Amino acid sequence: ITKKVLMLPGDGIGPEVMRQVQRVMDWMAKKRDINFDVTEGLIGGASIDAHNNPLTDETLADAMAADAVLLGAVGGPKWDNIPFDIKPERGLLKIRKEMGLFANLRPALVFDALVGASTLKEDVVKGLDIMILRELTGGIYFGQPRGIEERDGVRFGFNTLVYSEPEIERIARVAFDMAMKRNKRLCSVDKANVLESTVLWREVVERVAREFPEVDISHMYVDNAAMQLVRNPKQFDVMVTTNMFGDILSDCAAMLTGSLGMLPSASLGAADETGARKALYEPVHGSAPDIAGQDLANPLATLLSFAMMLRYSFDMGDDATMIETAVQNVLKGGLRTADIMQPGMAKVSTSVMGEAVINELNKL
Amino acid sequence: ITKKVLMLPGDGIGPEVMRQVQRVMDWMAKKRDINFDVTEGLIGGASIDAHNNPLTDETLADAMAADAVLLGAVGGPKWDNIPFDIKPERGLLKIRKEMGLFANLRPALVFDALVGASTLKEDVVKGLDIMILRELTGGIYFGQPRGIEERDGVRFGFNTLVYSEPEIERIARVAFDMAMKRNKRLCSVDKANVLESTVLWREVVERVAREFPEVDISHMYVDNAAMQLVRNPKQFDVMVTTNMFGDILSDCAAMLTGSLGMLPSASLGAADETGARKALYEPVHGSAPDIAGQDLANPLATLLSFAMMLRYSFDMGDDATMIETAVQNVLKGGLRTADIMQPGMAKVSTSVMGEAVINELNKL
Ligand SMILES: CC(C)[C@H](C(=O)O)[C@@H](O)C(=O)O
Ligand SMILES: CC(C)[C@H](C(=O)O)[C@@H](O)C(=O)O
Repeated sequence: ITKKVLMLPGDGIGPEVMRQVQRVMDWMAKKRDINFDVTEGLIGGASIDAHNNPLTDETLADAMAADAVLLGAVGGPKWDNIPFDIKPERGLLKIRKEMGLFANLRPALVFDALVGASTLKEDVVKGLDIMILRELTGGIYFGQPRGIEERDGVRFGFNTLVYSEPEIERIARVAFDMAMKRNKRLCSVDKANVLESTVLWREVVERVAREFPEVDISHMYVDNAAMQLVRNPKQFDVMVTTNMFGDILSDCAAMLTGSLGMLPSASLGAADETGARKALYEPVHGSAPDIAGQDLANPLATLLSFAMMLRYSFDMGDDATMIETAVQNVLKGGLRTADIMQPGMAKVSTSVMGEAVINELNKL
Repeated sequence: ITKKVLMLPGDGIGPEVMRQVQRVMDWMAKKRDINFDVTEGLIGGASIDAHNNPLTDETLADAMAADAVLLGAVGGPKWDNIPFDIKPERGLLKIRKEMGLFANLRPALVFDALVGASTLKEDVVKGLDIMILRELTGGIYFGQPRGIEERDGVRFGFNTLVYSEPEIERIARVAFDMAMKRNKRLCSVDKANVLESTVLWREVVERVAREFPEVDISHMYVDNAAMQLVRNPKQFDVMVTTNMFGDILSDCAAMLTGSLGMLPSASLGAADETGARKALYEPVHGSAPDIAGQDLANPLATLLSFAMMLRYSFDMGDDATMIETAVQNVLKGGLRTADIMQPGMAKVSTSVMGEAVINELNKL
C-alpha cells in the first residue's frame, strides 16, 4: 500500500525548499520504485490569504488521513497585525493539538563540515549530537484558563501551566525509549524548586525511570540547563522537557550548531493498535520572508526532515540514512547555500543544492 | 547617618566570599571614613538548620529595616530532600516578594582579561556588556492557583502565569530608565504569539515606550532571544523580560561570559517618597557546596555585588567604580581563583584574592 503524505509548504521559503523534497521523491519513484501518494494543502499565512483561517477543517482532515505530514514554514510580517486568534501560528498549534503530536524530536547536530559555522569554539561543539524531546501538546501552550481580563479596573494577562500524570508519562516514555536507542543517558529538565507542575513532572519521570534501569537519568533546573548547553553541550545525550522550556532550549541548542538551516524536526503522536503514529515533520528554521522566492534558502533541513519521516513513520531507516549521507557528501564536496557559506566553498542556490543531493544519491 | 547593611552569608561558599566584602568595608572605614552599620543574619539552609525555616520573621524584619541587603548564596544537597515549602529557595523567593524587589538587574559582562574563558569565540563575546532586567516578584513564580491535585482519579500539577498592567509598567519603566543611561536600546522578550499574558506585556511595554522616544525599542520571542544570545549577543544592550524567561535568559547570558564567578546582581524595589529603594545584592553563582570552606571560591562576584550596592543604594558611584577598577587591576595583574584559572596565571585562594583587591584599592 502506498504511503500517503500531505505536504504543507506554508509561507516564505516553505514552497521552494519543499520542491527539493519533491525531487527526491521523484528520484525514489524512478530509481527505487518507492512511491508516495502526495497531496498538497495550505497552512499559516497562505491559508489565511485563501480562507481567512490558518488551518481549515479540510486541511486538518487531510492531515488526519495522511500517514505523515511534511511542513515547510509558517508566518511572516504580512500577517503580524492580524488578530491573535487567526495568526499563522494558530494553524501550527492547532494541527499539533488536533493530531495529538505530543512528542517533538529536536536533534541538535553539528556536521563536521560545518563546525566552523558555530559561534562556539570548535572543541566545545565538534561532534555534538543531542536529541531534545519537547512535550508539544500540553503545558502552558494549551492550559486553561487563559486570556486578558479586567478586575477592579486593573487588567491582568494570564496563562495556565498544567500537566497531568499521563501526559508526563507518555513523553517520558518516548524519551527513555530514545535514550535506549542512543547512549542511554537522559536529562529531564524542570523547575521543580519553584513550579509545582514540574514537581509532578520530576516525580513521574522518576517513576518511569524504574522501567528503564539501564538508562542513566538525571534532573536539571531549566536555568542551569540553559547554562550547561552553553558551557558544555556535549555532556548531554537525550533531554526531555516541557513545551515552553523545550521551545527555548531546543532553539538555544539549535543555535549552538551555528547552522539552523540544517536542522530537521519530527512531531509524533501516540502509536495506534497497528503501531502507526500520526506524525509531522518540519525544518527548525522559520519562513525567512526576507529571502523568500529568490532560490536562496537552504533546503537541507527540509530534506533531513523528510529523512526523519522515512525513519520514524515508514520504517525506512536505510533510505533515511541514504539521504543523510547524500547531504553530508554534498557538504564535503564544498557546496553551500548562503546561510552556511564559508570561505573557499562554492555558493549555490536552493535548486542547485537540491540537484546536488540527487547527484550524490545517484552515486550511493 | 550611617547606612544599615544586612549581610546574609547563606550556605556553601556564601560565608567565605562575604568575608572579603567585610574586608573592603573595613578598608573603607579606615581609609575613607565611610562606615556601615552591619548586621548579620541567616537565610536558606543555614536558617533551616537553626530554625527549621529558610527565612524567619526576625531576619525578614532586619531586611526590611536595612538600607540594603547583601546575600551570599543559598542551598545545597544537604537540604535537597526536605519538603518543598521549607526548602532553602523558599527563603530567597520570600525575601524577594516581601521586600517587593521586582526589578532584578543581571549584567552579563565580559572582562577583557577573561575573554578566553568563554566557550564562545573571542570576536563574538569580546567587549560584551548586556544588562538583563528580570521581573522578580510576579509571573509564574508567584501566581495563584498552583499546586498538585487529583481530579477524577488523575493527578494534575499546575501553576499560573499572571501579570497585571501595573506590574509590567513598573519593570518596563526601570528598563527604559536603564536604557537611557546606557546605549538607548531596549529589547523586550515575550512569547506574545502564544501566551496572552505576554500579549499584555508587549502592549504595556509599547505604551511605556511612548514616554521614552529616544529609546530604540524592539520585541523578540523568547525562543529567538535564546538563539540570538548564542548567535550574536552583542546585538543587545538592555533586555527586559518576565520572571521565568529572565531566569533562563540571564543564566544563559551569564554563561556566555564563561566566568560566572565574576557576575553580580541587584534586586530593587520601588522608590519611596525619599527616593530610597529596598534592595538586595547577590552574586549570580550558587553556593558551590563542593568547594565550600576550602578558601577556593571566587569572591569577585560578591565584591562586585557590593559595588552595585554602593552605586544603586547609596549613590556612591565613584566608590563603586573604584572597587570595579581594583577588580580589573587584580585580573590584569594575573591573579586568578581556580574557577577562572588560565595558563600562565597565578592561582590564588579566596582570601588572597580579597587581599589583592585591598592592595589595588590602596594604589588607586
Ligand atoms: C511559532 C511558534 C508558535 C512555535 C512554538 O512556540 O512552538 C515555534 O517557535 C516552534 O518552536 O515551533
Ligand atoms: C534558586 C531559584 C529559586 C532562583 C530563581 O529561580 O529565581 C535562582 O535560580 C535565581 O535565578 O536566583
